[in-house]
Amino acid sequence: MKYRRSGRLVDMTNYFLSHPHQQIPLTYFSEAYKSAKSSISEDLAIIKEVFEVRNVGTLETAAGASGGVTFIPRVDIYATGNLIDQLCERLEDPERLLPGGYIYMMDVIGDPLLTQDLGRIFASRFRSAKVDAVMTMATKGIPLAYAVAAHLNVPVSIVRHEHRITEGSIVSINYVSGSKKRIQTMSLARRSLKPNSNVLIIDDFMKAGGTIRGMMDLVQEFQSNVAGVGVLTESIHEEEKLVNEYVSLTKLTEMNVKSREIKVERGNLFDDVYQI
Amino acid sequence: MKYRRSGRLVDMTNYFLSHPHQQIPLTYFSEAYKSAKSSISEDLAIIKEVFEVRNVGTLETAAGASGGVTFIPRVDIYATGNLIDQLCERLEDPERLLPGGYIYMMDVIGDPLLTQDLGRIFASRFRSAKVDAVMTMATKGIPLAYAVAAHLNVPVSIVRHEHRITEGSIVSINYVSGSKKRIQTMSLARRSLKPNSNVLIIDDFMKAGGTIRGMMDLVQEFQSNVAGVGVLTESIHEEEKLVNEYVSLTKLTEMNVKSREIKVERGNLFDDVYQI
Repeated sequence: MKYRRSGRLVDMTNYFLSHPHQQIPLTYFSEAYKSAKSSISEDLAIIKEVFEVRNVGTLETAAGASGGVTFIPRVDIYATGNLIDQLCERLEDPERLLPGGYIYMMDVIGDPLLTQDLGRIFASRFRSAKVDAVMTMATKGIPLAYAVAAHLNVPVSIVRHEHRITEGSIVSINYVSGSKKRIQTMSLARRSLKPNSNVLIIDDFMKAGGTIRGMMDLVQEFQSNVAGVGVLTESIHEEEKLVNEYVSLTKLTEMNVKSREIKVERGNLFDDVYQI
Repeated sequence: MKYRRSGRLVDMTNYFLSHPHQQIPLTYFSEAYKSAKSSISEDLAIIKEVFEVRNVGTLETAAGASGGVTFIPRVDIYATGNLIDQLCERLEDPERLLPGGYIYMMDVIGDPLLTQDLGRIFASRFRSAKVDAVMTMATKGIPLAYAVAAHLNVPVSIVRHEHRITEGSIVSINYVSGSKKRIQTMSLARRSLKPNSNVLIIDDFMKAGGTIRGMMDLVQEFQSNVAGVGVLTESIHEEEKLVNEYVSLTKLTEMNVKSREIKVERGNLFDDVYQI
């Protein structure tokens, strides 16, 4: 089919957005649209400019025979700051207070478009980490993990507390839940993570960090490497956390069940704005 | 910021794709781009045409003061047929056979971009069902449910087998697992589904339909209505299923553990192609 520039721009924009972190040869577009490579290059320049101005991401071009163009989802610091500030305010609603030092977050986690925006933040932060897979713990980490993985174009491995019959052979490890100091088990299907993967661990909530620590150990069991750790909310914890390096979007800094006060601040993502 | 047509087309395409099922007034665009409404209308015609030709969806325009334009994600029958045929072939790999009449599907469910494509099929099929929320069962239904919900722009309610302390008051019901004929419990946080919602139930696998039947009953407990039921794979089941109306993408029709043969066919979605 022959496309004019206007049609090409719409179609290419859609194509890039649905194929992030995937190098596409220029010939793919020039053949699909029966257009000269020079025209395609001009199209790409227009798309790249709009993507950058609107903080959608960028297009990276690699020259040569094996070259092509890759859409890298990015976020910008100002829009991200605003989004997280709004989220902090929402989370400070005292109605969210639950027994045991937890806060209700299912409405946040249950919002697919917000989750996609939050996922793009982590995908931007870890865009250069050569991530091969995202790992998360069932249940509440799953939505955010999928959003991150979709923007990075990598598969998700879901770790579970229970052993499930429907996944074949599994690898289980024991770990100590940091807050409750209780020994628990987590399992991952043997075939759901390839050896030698570079794994980004994503979860919704981190208190002492015991669950994340467990997932880091599980990554080792698969002869793989931890590329990074990202959590939606880290919570106050009196003792030393079990995880040293992690990126948090929000930080629960105060929680008073009696006076019904919650204080939520920006997470450590903002400590180094050049990495966002 | 003043945009030329080429820039507007890229930006509007991105905007529509990230705001499905949301009516956007023409003034939103004309103000954002400082462009005449007549120019915006021409842009919309171009986007609509490409979206329809490329089976991304369509733009619906409502006239009048409260009018605007809405992006409705759609799929087309041929592309969907091809996608599902490929999936069936993948699922027929005998390596997937697991004890108890299950097949390993985590690689399919674990692929975020494939999941988004599958989610768009259900979003297309139920585009006119006035869905307010998507409901699913933890764990394996979650990725597909989020993909469907993102394309419909509605929240997700996650039903669980266990009672979790971190979600406040919950509503629990007992249900009979159809295959195992065992009484089990499922729970949903009280505040995770608004009363009078029109609920689309999405799950990864259905055998006798006991879990889906349970979710249908749970919807009633929230004074809500079942808008539809969608499953990725329905399995052979000798007795009558506990759910009459559902849409399946694939159908597991044969499974011989001894000869290691699996047969997977297109699901009942394709029985009525005019609804896709």
